[in-house]
Amino acid sequence: MIALEQKIINEGRVMPGNILNVGSFLNQQLDAAFLWEMGEEVARLYKDCGITKILTIEASGIAVAVAVGAVMKVPVLFAKKHRSGNVAGAVHKVTIHSYTHGNDYEAVVPSEYLRSDDRVLLVDDFLANGAALRGLVELTKQAGAEVVGAAIAIEKGFQKGGDSLREEGVRVESLAIIESFNNGKIVFRSQG
Amino acid sequence: MIALEQKIINEGRVMPGNILNVGSFLNQQLDAAFLWEMGEEVARLYKDCGITKILTIEASGIAVAVAVGAVMKVPVLFAKKHRSGNVAGAVHKVTIHSYTHGNDYEAVVPSEYLRSDDRVLLVDDFLANGAALRGLVELTKQAGAEVVGAAIAIEKGFQKGGDSLREEGVRVESLAIIESFNNGKIVFRSQG
Repeated sequence: MIALEQKIINEGRVMPGNILNVGSFLNQQLDAAFLWEMGEEVARLYKDCGITKILTIEASGIAVAVAVGAVMKVPVLFAKKHRSGNVAGAVHKVTIHSYTHGNDYEAVVPSEYLRSDDRVLLVDDFLANGAALRGLVELTKQAGAEVVGAAIAIEKGFQKGGDSLREEGVRVESLAIIESFNNGKIVFRSQG
Repeated sequence: MIALEQKIINEGRVMPGNILNVGSFLNQQLDAAFLWEMGEEVARLYKDCGITKILTIEASGIAVAVAVGAVMKVPVLFAKKHRSGNVAGAVHKVTIHSYTHGNDYEAVVPSEYLRSDDRVLLVDDFLANGAALRGLVELTKQAGAEVVGAAIAIEKGFQKGGDSLREEGVRVESLAIIESFNNGKIVFRSQG
């Protein structure tokens, strides 16, 4: 999505350690009108796929997922993060490792909201090593539902989480894929 | 907003202890198309108020705020919750007491995203005792910015947080106000 690549170039900041800061529009501050444009692009990519549910994970994934859900008119479900495994009620639950924080957490959705007849689109803002996205795949499988695919705003292509999932047959669509940081210059993967 | 009252009656569940569960459309599962309708109603209420920023708090406030921001075409900023006061960079920060969890947490926004010339609309999904909303008022004041008002999806009128703020001169618009639970039947405050 050219508009997203352009926005990353214009507003993103490459921090020490090749960390991309897009906090001005996609993290702590959200450009809601632009989120809507991203939602329209995702809806175009997954048109006629019979999506019945969008699944994301709190907190920053919610914004993109809501935009996608509003355009597609599909309910959005988000997995909650818990530090302990002590969750009440009937739930689907997986353990996800956070490379950012160096710990594990539980991602939980109530069973009643994710059912075996759901056709699920996984949505997240970032994809790097793929741990969170794999967790969402696993949650969907636990429910006996079908993973139709994933839609990501920004993928860090050099961390290979997306490519591993693609090799395993999961459809992963990322609106922008960063191939490398070349002396602070952002190089995108061509998706033409 | 009649459509919201109707949705609460149709899909909400009153749990033991008079807790309202709207998890099927406003909490863990989100009716994104309906969120958009709520966004349009909030945009109507705050039309011509010169709003430059929407401020909410993670996690479940983000969904409503994004819908409002997308309709109003205004950036959305969310305060992050931290357990410790150890936050890097220049920030505005307040301590909020959670009556739900019985502890305090820090709510933090980077200073660069909330500035003295901002005209701020506070948005949240729920308003009960008002602790979170007061925290957002305080964050805005720390930035030297102006609180134009607040927009809430569901207010628990009987917990008086909204009325206290109104008495102090804060404009608080709630799309539905629950006045009481009468033997499990939900009674709304008339806002005609």
